[in-house]
Amino acid sequence: MSASPYEQLEEEFKRLHALRGALSLLRWDAAVMMPRGSADVRGEQLAALETEHHALLTAPRISRLLDRAQANTQGLEDWQIANLREMRRERDHAIATPVSLISRLTKAVSQAEVCWQDARAKGRFDLFAPHLEDVVHLVRDKAALLGQALNLAPYDALVDEFSPGITTADIDAMFKALSRRLPALIREVIGAQESRPPRPIEGRFPHAKQRALIIEVMKQIGFSFDRGRLDESEHPFTEGVPGDIRVTTRLDVADPFTGLLGAMHETGHAMYDLGLPQDWRDQPVGRDRGMALEESQSLLMEMIVCRSRPFVRYVQPLIAKHFGLDGAEWEVENVYAHLTRVRRGLIRVDADELTYPLHVLLRYELEKRLLSGELAVRDLPEAWNEGMQQRLGIRPGNDTEGCLQDVHWAVGSFGYFPSYALGAMIAAQLYESLRNDVPTLDEQLSRGEFGGLFEWLGAHVYGLGAKVPVQDLLRGATRKPLSASAYIRYVEGKYLAPAASEAA
Amino acid sequence: MSASPYEQLEEEFKRLHALRGALSLLRWDAAVMMPRGSADVRGEQLAALETEHHALLTAPRISRLLDRAQANTQGLEDWQIANLREMRRERDHAIATPVSLISRLTKAVSQAEVCWQDARAKGRFDLFAPHLEDVVHLVRDKAALLGQALNLAPYDALVDEFSPGITTADIDAMFKALSRRLPALIREVIGAQESRPPRPIEGRFPHAKQRALIIEVMKQIGFSFDRGRLDESEHPFTEGVPGDIRVTTRLDVADPFTGLLGAMHETGHAMYDLGLPQDWRDQPVGRDRGMALEESQSLLMEMIVCRSRPFVRYVQPLIAKHFGLDGAEWEVENVYAHLTRVRRGLIRVDADELTYPLHVLLRYELEKRLLSGELAVRDLPEAWNEGMQQRLGIRPGNDTEGCLQDVHWAVGSFGYFPSYALGAMIAAQLYESLRNDVPTLDEQLSRGEFGGLFEWLGAHVYGLGAKVPVQDLLRGATRKPLSASAYIRYVEGKYLAPAASEAA
Repeated sequence: MSASPYEQLEEEFKRLHALRGALSLLRWDAAVMMPRGSADVRGEQLAALETEHHALLTAPRISRLLDRAQANTQGLEDWQIANLREMRRERDHAIATPVSLISRLTKAVSQAEVCWQDARAKGRFDLFAPHLEDVVHLVRDKAALLGQALNLAPYDALVDEFSPGITTADIDAMFKALSRRLPALIREVIGAQESRPPRPIEGRFPHAKQRALIIEVMKQIGFSFDRGRLDESEHPFTEGVPGDIRVTTRLDVADPFTGLLGAMHETGHAMYDLGLPQDWRDQPVGRDRGMALEESQSLLMEMIVCRSRPFVRYVQPLIAKHFGLDGAEWEVENVYAHLTRVRRGLIRVDADELTYPLHVLLRYELEKRLLSGELAVRDLPEAWNEGMQQRLGIRPGNDTEGCLQDVHWAVGSFGYFPSYALGAMIAAQLYESLRNDVPTLDEQLSRGEFGGLFEWLGAHVYGLGAKVPVQDLLRGATRKPLSASAYIRYVEGKYLAPAASEAA
Repeated sequence: MSASPYEQLEEEFKRLHALRGALSLLRWDAAVMMPRGSADVRGEQLAALETEHHALLTAPRISRLLDRAQANTQGLEDWQIANLREMRRERDHAIATPVSLISRLTKAVSQAEVCWQDARAKGRFDLFAPHLEDVVHLVRDKAALLGQALNLAPYDALVDEFSPGITTADIDAMFKALSRRLPALIREVIGAQESRPPRPIEGRFPHAKQRALIIEVMKQIGFSFDRGRLDESEHPFTEGVPGDIRVTTRLDVADPFTGLLGAMHETGHAMYDLGLPQDWRDQPVGRDRGMALEESQSLLMEMIVCRSRPFVRYVQPLIAKHFGLDGAEWEVENVYAHLTRVRRGLIRVDADELTYPLHVLLRYELEKRLLSGELAVRDLPEAWNEGMQQRLGIRPGNDTEGCLQDVHWAVGSFGYFPSYALGAMIAAQLYESLRNDVPTLDEQLSRGEFGGLFEWLGAHVYGLGAKVPVQDLLRGATRKPLSASAYIRYVEGKYLAPAASEAA
């Protein structure tokens, strides 16, 4: 008997999955292993594979098979039907943007990124502005075409690529709640923390010892080094596929926490990827449910779990063991105070979990205005500085610590920023339910037991892959629609609690 | 004006080149970086890329373009015409074997390789025999089809894949000359060496110090670490593309030479690849001229250059510097005696340059008889042991050190072995002309100057890429057809020279 249209589609998407895995490995290698002078060669390899992937995905054969499979879904199980939906979604996204536009965007972006690096180093926005204009124009075209094809507003179509099923209306509602509560909360927390600053933590923390500590913690969490690696790179990231996950972090010899927390962030991504449904590993329905949910898992790990007293209780003896340290500054309360310090800063990637959403909010508003044409590229620096002043009460001294700090716009990633803040909201909402369902969670974590955490996440998040939209997944896991409420309760509870209350 | 058929072909082959580069990186990663448990995932990625490469290369579009380009070559330069010939050659090889046969062969060898590892570990040929039979049958079919398509005898068609333009008649003539001279020469040399054995070299040579030494030598040779890497792996190899060359070696803490000479062998490959014509880098005519020539470059470096007194004079102070050693056993003559020690051994990869061709000869004869059906797979162990006895005067005690030692047949590489011995012949022939044309070569090498060596090789070998057949290349460089004469003169001169003659 010959294969059904659905079965043939599974075969095609299995090949596409393998190509995506190869692309991911090429990117990992470029950031971690590749000789510095070989970027041109790698660029051509990536472009060739991406072209191939796009050609296979948008081939008439796939369209025909999708139509035939969808015409008769009798006999298909719910996972298969969801898989068919995700196949079509992926195809629709790919086919909506003509190859000519993609290739113009690829070229514009590769030039813009180089100029952005130069402009950022020199603090000269004027060098970057003409390239950013090119990129904005092309992304605007792309958003319009995507929007038409997906029947969404242009900006919503961009968001849909990263956070499927989440709309501008959802984001606006959450950001409104954050805007209302966070500025006052930040003021109050900073005031309280300044009145009792932690003992300073200083010293030299050799890379090899940091690595040994991180690997011990990652193993304890359940990361399998038989099917994954930890390396160092300029910016931490996770690449690879379930079955070969590559995590990186950045080690700072003067700071024992940056490397560990960077690795924990990426381990959050990795655990999600490793927990995706085994049977659907090489199919669209077996993938993660987009950037917002990915980011929720990394933030849940880095910000909520690792910056908690139970985790500090578990990790503190390990720090003492690996670095051979035991002064008063290494006591649990003091380490916890360091990990939960709130500061008004100009740089997003250095921000704590309380001020972070405000950085994202600013970018979200500015990128929407840039795309709509309401804000001209030349006026971006002033709008940025004004926004920082309004939201965080500080003003960049130059564009390097202002609108030139992030690479996202240079590489055409519009619609991506909201997923960072959405991730924080989702993480807090999941965590609230998790604590309800697993009442002994704190005791487990303080003993370095992660079973309760990952069983719950496995059942309610990981194991679903891309079977249901984000909103449905969240309703299933938390019995509530996505909102900022849990996040606000979480940060209020954590940052307004008196220091002594839980120290006993 | 639209692109000509030839120009369109260049575009197509540029994409194919990028895919080949991606495949090479995936293989490098699998051997050097990949977590042990991830082989299944990598296997699928490699298969997907290979399938894609094959599909693109054998697409009707390429055939049409080749025909149209060849119908009108007016206006094409000689490099372009040679490129067209190489494009067709590559396509002809790919199209001669039907996809169904390739996929059966791929499956058979992947099983055979696993069983070969097991059988070798246990010394049990019977476990491997049925799998080898499958592989032999399928390779026989492949050879017949390739032979028909290329108008060659079946075994010659297999050789053509690795050493284009070289026939069984060429190989037979050379091997006959070797068979006639080598056994007596080996007897004589071993007798002379046994009468004055070198002082033993013993100690612990830490990996980090070996690495530092190797890197210093590789830099001096001209290997660019800005566009290449050195790593460790179980077996030394070279992967990557010009522009991103990845070399590996295997370090042995008890032996200061294995790692260095392994790296020098691979650096020989790398220098060839790096010297290929820059303007044709992503085209078939810009590639190396097949395995025999590749192997000539690695052997020229490892066996001829590095196992010479001038090179030992250059490297000896570096060894002293990196390992902090200076006993009498580290004097130039004693190190040279170690590097040129001849021994009758059972294992090909451990063989010296004098006995090595005899190992290859045996395999060449056996694989031809296996493919023709003259030798049954079950009779292979006995035929192997008999051949070793005849040729080298020693007999394996088991099949692990006999016919199970090499992976080649398990993975279907028939027709590959001759290129090892051909490489040694070509290397010696090139070296003879090189020494004539560059009379100060020895002085240069003893000062660590590699300019004269690589300028000559660049002009006569590297820079030609795949523009002319091996035989023409060799005639151009040496004014002689390929033969074993130069090799025999070279080994006689080197191994029969009295030890004192050059020691002064």
